[in-house]
Amino acid sequence: MSIENLSSNKSFAGWHKQYNHYAETLSCTMRFAIYLPPQAANGQKVPVLYWLSGLTCTDENFMQKAGAHRAAAELGVAIVAPDTSPRGEDVADDESYDLGQGAGFFVNATEAPWSSHYQMYNYVVNELPALIEANFPVNDQRAIAGHSMGGHGALVIALRNPQRYCSVSAFSPISNPMNCPWGKKAFTAYLGEDTHSWRDYDASLLMREATQPVPALVDQGEADRFLTEQLQPERLEAAATDSGYPLQLRRHEGYDHSYYFISSFIDEHLRFHANHFNK
Amino acid sequence: MSIENLSSNKSFAGWHKQYNHYAETLSCTMRFAIYLPPQAANGQKVPVLYWLSGLTCTDENFMQKAGAHRAAAELGVAIVAPDTSPRGEDVADDESYDLGQGAGFFVNATEAPWSSHYQMYNYVVNELPALIEANFPVNDQRAIAGHSMGGHGALVIALRNPQRYCSVSAFSPISNPMNCPWGKKAFTAYLGEDTHSWRDYDASLLMREATQPVPALVDQGEADRFLTEQLQPERLEAAATDSGYPLQLRRHEGYDHSYYFISSFIDEHLRFHANHFNK
Repeated sequence: MSIENLSSNKSFAGWHKQYNHYAETLSCTMRFAIYLPPQAANGQKVPVLYWLSGLTCTDENFMQKAGAHRAAAELGVAIVAPDTSPRGEDVADDESYDLGQGAGFFVNATEAPWSSHYQMYNYVVNELPALIEANFPVNDQRAIAGHSMGGHGALVIALRNPQRYCSVSAFSPISNPMNCPWGKKAFTAYLGEDTHSWRDYDASLLMREATQPVPALVDQGEADRFLTEQLQPERLEAAATDSGYPLQLRRHEGYDHSYYFISSFIDEHLRFHANHFNK
Repeated sequence: MSIENLSSNKSFAGWHKQYNHYAETLSCTMRFAIYLPPQAANGQKVPVLYWLSGLTCTDENFMQKAGAHRAAAELGVAIVAPDTSPRGEDVADDESYDLGQGAGFFVNATEAPWSSHYQMYNYVVNELPALIEANFPVNDQRAIAGHSMGGHGALVIALRNPQRYCSVSAFSPISNPMNCPWGKKAFTAYLGEDTHSWRDYDASLLMREATQPVPALVDQGEADRFLTEQLQPERLEAAATDSGYPLQLRRHEGYDHSYYFISSFIDEHLRFHANHFNK
């Protein structure tokens, strides 16, 4: 599990670093970024928030645009941002922005030509945390969060692995991918026409059936142009209401789908997660 | 002085907006961004910080990466980010990153082919503030700040127009452009071989001669790869010491030339400027 350092930037008295590593799960070289708060340089092992980004993103979008380092440094939380799909010339791709590279949807693909590399669910749940915990001064307290496609990924991963995560949060998640155009297109390609297997990757379905709930915070902008057709937070809210799930879903007047929305509320997400570590 | 709105994003209860307008000074269409804090929506006229970015940047780099909106919203300060040069197919350019479009150096060019459009000094000092003050709920209290080439621009503009600015700050400014490779290349192209005219655009020289000082804050990272050859903050510091100029210059161990450095200290710059408004 060797990692290659690509860049280092001091940020809020901690460090933002990028690394390459060969991901066995994905059969390709992957880049990720980590923010290590100043506490991690003082012999302290810190908890980790995993951040999953949206369509077209890499590890860089969140680290550069979310303004999250300030609160992470204050709270002593590391942040790890993986890429959003396998990458490389040998990796299947598609011309559209919402399928293929940059659009892995955090599933384990079963269909050709995707299945040989597109195993992002396993990568985020297993290989990446093992790599992080072997190479950095972090403890085994984990939280997971994301935006849009990554919000979908974070919710699905937390709902299916409640023993591994202290808390989960999302901005503008694709809440019911089985029933929206982005999700149907991606799931058909990666998982096939049989929708039975899709159920493992639908947060609204999983939240209805959750028996060991992970505390969840979701923020949604009301001026988000994807709100009605793609994101459908009302489906998640209905699932939580019906099953008694501890979901806090907040709607924010005037905010859109951009990182300006994320940066406006990321401090509250970091505090939410910090409050659930050490419990 | 008509302006065309291109985008609007709610951010920290205020608004980030981009506009196009035809700049008479530059004889081309220019884009700028403005952050309007929530106070500006409540009938209040707010002061304005003008931000000048570095080589290769547009209005977007600072707005997306600096994490400045949070403190601007708290303090009730608007931020205006112009582009770093005239733009367009009819505008002279150069293949290198440090001359031509994206590299206007905030001077009034006198040499062909640059002089017909490259009048960024006049644009930032006169046309842009007039446009902003005619179209947005701002008052006539102004501050100016910038990074690298934009730090040079901010210092030069404040030093030459002390009646127009309450305060000035810079991250990693090109402190003595007459005596560094970036400055010599740009000034030779834009201003000609006669170095006499260069003196109007050199912060270290201007600071030695300042008679009406504008309070100045400069932050410099000690791990900045441009520190010794291009930035030379010691020249600015020597000028301030010799002339008794109110310059606070801080060196920060480990920080580089990136926006991670800027974001780490931008709150302190905003507070510095807020403290000098209304005096």
